[in-house]
Amino acid sequence: MQTIAVNLPQHSYQIAIFPHGLQQLGSQLRQLPVGNKVLLVSNPTVFNYYGEIARQSLENAGFSLAVHLIPDGEQHKTLDRLAEVYDTALLHRIERSSTLIALGGGVIGDMTGFAAATWLRGVNFVQVPTTLLAMVDASIGGKTGVNHPQGKNLIGAFYQPCLVLIDPLTLKTLPPREFRAGMAEVIKYGVICDRPLFDALEQAPSLDSLEKLSPQLLETILQHSCQAKATIVSQDEKEAGLRAILNYGHTLGHAIESLTHYSQFLHGEAVAMGMVAAGEIARRLDLWTAADAQRQTQLIHKAQLPSQIPSHLKTNAILTALKTDKKVKDGTVRFVLPTANGQAIVEDGVTPEVLRTVLAEIGAISD
Amino acid sequence: MQTIAVNLPQHSYQIAIFPHGLQQLGSQLRQLPVGNKVLLVSNPTVFNYYGEIARQSLENAGFSLAVHLIPDGEQHKTLDRLAEVYDTALLHRIERSSTLIALGGGVIGDMTGFAAATWLRGVNFVQVPTTLLAMVDASIGGKTGVNHPQGKNLIGAFYQPCLVLIDPLTLKTLPPREFRAGMAEVIKYGVICDRPLFDALEQAPSLDSLEKLSPQLLETILQHSCQAKATIVSQDEKEAGLRAILNYGHTLGHAIESLTHYSQFLHGEAVAMGMVAAGEIARRLDLWTAADAQRQTQLIHKAQLPSQIPSHLKTNAILTALKTDKKVKDGTVRFVLPTANGQAIVEDGVTPEVLRTVLAEIGAISD
Repeated sequence: MQTIAVNLPQHSYQIAIFPHGLQQLGSQLRQLPVGNKVLLVSNPTVFNYYGEIARQSLENAGFSLAVHLIPDGEQHKTLDRLAEVYDTALLHRIERSSTLIALGGGVIGDMTGFAAATWLRGVNFVQVPTTLLAMVDASIGGKTGVNHPQGKNLIGAFYQPCLVLIDPLTLKTLPPREFRAGMAEVIKYGVICDRPLFDALEQAPSLDSLEKLSPQLLETILQHSCQAKATIVSQDEKEAGLRAILNYGHTLGHAIESLTHYSQFLHGEAVAMGMVAAGEIARRLDLWTAADAQRQTQLIHKAQLPSQIPSHLKTNAILTALKTDKKVKDGTVRFVLPTANGQAIVEDGVTPEVLRTVLAEIGAISD
Repeated sequence: MQTIAVNLPQHSYQIAIFPHGLQQLGSQLRQLPVGNKVLLVSNPTVFNYYGEIARQSLENAGFSLAVHLIPDGEQHKTLDRLAEVYDTALLHRIERSSTLIALGGGVIGDMTGFAAATWLRGVNFVQVPTTLLAMVDASIGGKTGVNHPQGKNLIGAFYQPCLVLIDPLTLKTLPPREFRAGMAEVIKYGVICDRPLFDALEQAPSLDSLEKLSPQLLETILQHSCQAKATIVSQDEKEAGLRAILNYGHTLGHAIESLTHYSQFLHGEAVAMGMVAAGEIARRLDLWTAADAQRQTQLIHKAQLPSQIPSHLKTNAILTALKTDKKVKDGTVRFVLPTANGQAIVEDGVTPEVLRTVLAEIGAISD
């Protein structure tokens, strides 16, 4: 078992990475100061694979368990579906000392975390991510929430888990497309803060499926990505500054997801296109070289992720969508841009002209 | 102007009490590190009285203002009405640096605070309470939220305002019944932690309307009550211990409100009955004397608040309702009880027998 500490002023916790960790969920939770009641939140697909293992582990450790399933998919990440979690919490008399456990991907983690943040003004929360994206990104750092019909994650809270338990074996049942989408966030860490990770990804023969990854590379990916996220979040829990660099690729990514109604692309796919755009912007502002941008694009292609946005997306629509982003400040769109030294900066001064040029270059139709 | 500091580890702020303070809302807000956009949330009744004063004050100070009105009444303290606040926030492009201002009573304050806590994972929040209850209690301390159909405030967050601005002149338009309901919380502070306040209330010729209060007594009431709440909250922001004593009268109070569907009694009226019950329990546990209980009941009568629960409420229904309270831990109902030295303790060990006896004594019908 590898453990990574997330050290925050008020809520430090451990990320535990270990194969067959799911069987240890109950005994791991027993080590924390929590009450006996647990509400396990999952979706039907994940619960079908791993629900019984989790249930048995928790019951063997003496926990009293209730289960709430949310239908699969980003379209269910809504206030209405959240209200149903509250109903189950009420039904099973979840108390302040009780624990909500998220077993699933980012949607389950975000919604369960927000439910934990807001039920009785806050109960205990544990993340058991089962997708690559949730393991390396969504489960760490306390961002929780649901979507507004007009924008992703507009409703939410910063709320930290008391444990993140990662069992890499759960990746075996992850659809290949979702595995590749998760790889986008891994590439992100390589670009913005972890050059050794970037190098390891470049040296890998393939990044587009779990089967083609060596066990060593998977371990490197999980360990480096979780460590990168933990380090950044530990320094800036509520995104006052540094943490914003984690939004690399996300400014345009969110706009693409919103314009395609969260149905055409997975989050990681949108982020991949966003990273290509941010790389191009960085190149035009002389923060990055053409070679840097090219190396990033090669990794994105190696993971079989999209680098061009679909031709039905119009430049003006994208520019409008960018302005509803949470990261807008006084109307200025904020981009995270990579720099030559393998880090990243936050840039408010990207002109509409540069934006239009880059959008055209990666496939948007001007109108 | 009197100011009272609420000192918290991460979010200290001032409570400013001053007549005609509403006219200074804009200039007061200008002194804080907030952006230019403001969303003022109120209800039609309060906005009709004070909306224009607030609007002019904010616009004169250069703020860009949007207004959202929530219909009057506790029955609108729901997730659905909250979703409408989010819609307005989106429409007016409220940003992370923007400020939500609650102008109204406890319902408006709680809902606006929860919207501020959860829109974009947290924007600035200012409380401008216009009811006595909101001034002395609800606006201070960061409890925000909405009701679940089956329980009050079950959905919410701890989220601190950056300013509480109290203009006592706004009490002039408060319906007398609501004024009296607010007085219940004032009496509460007198019982649990502020003997001089208790004495001042006892010496007053009347407590049942604003007109009959001397300006000095009103000043004492606001200042002592806010200070009491601020002191307790400063020591225990998230109700890990001490803060629980603020729930004096609330255990039974919440059950009564829930059983009467939030329609028969105002919160303060339910708390008044809850205080009488808690006083009787304390007397039976030898924490209080009969004379103590009698003095409290006299104050409650002087404020024309109810001391007996309505005869249609059945003992078993009350006992069941008590078990859905947020303060339940491992199934044990928790009461705050007054003690002989003018303070209060939290007691988990009130037996069903004592409870039944006291409920019968204050009017419940056994079934």
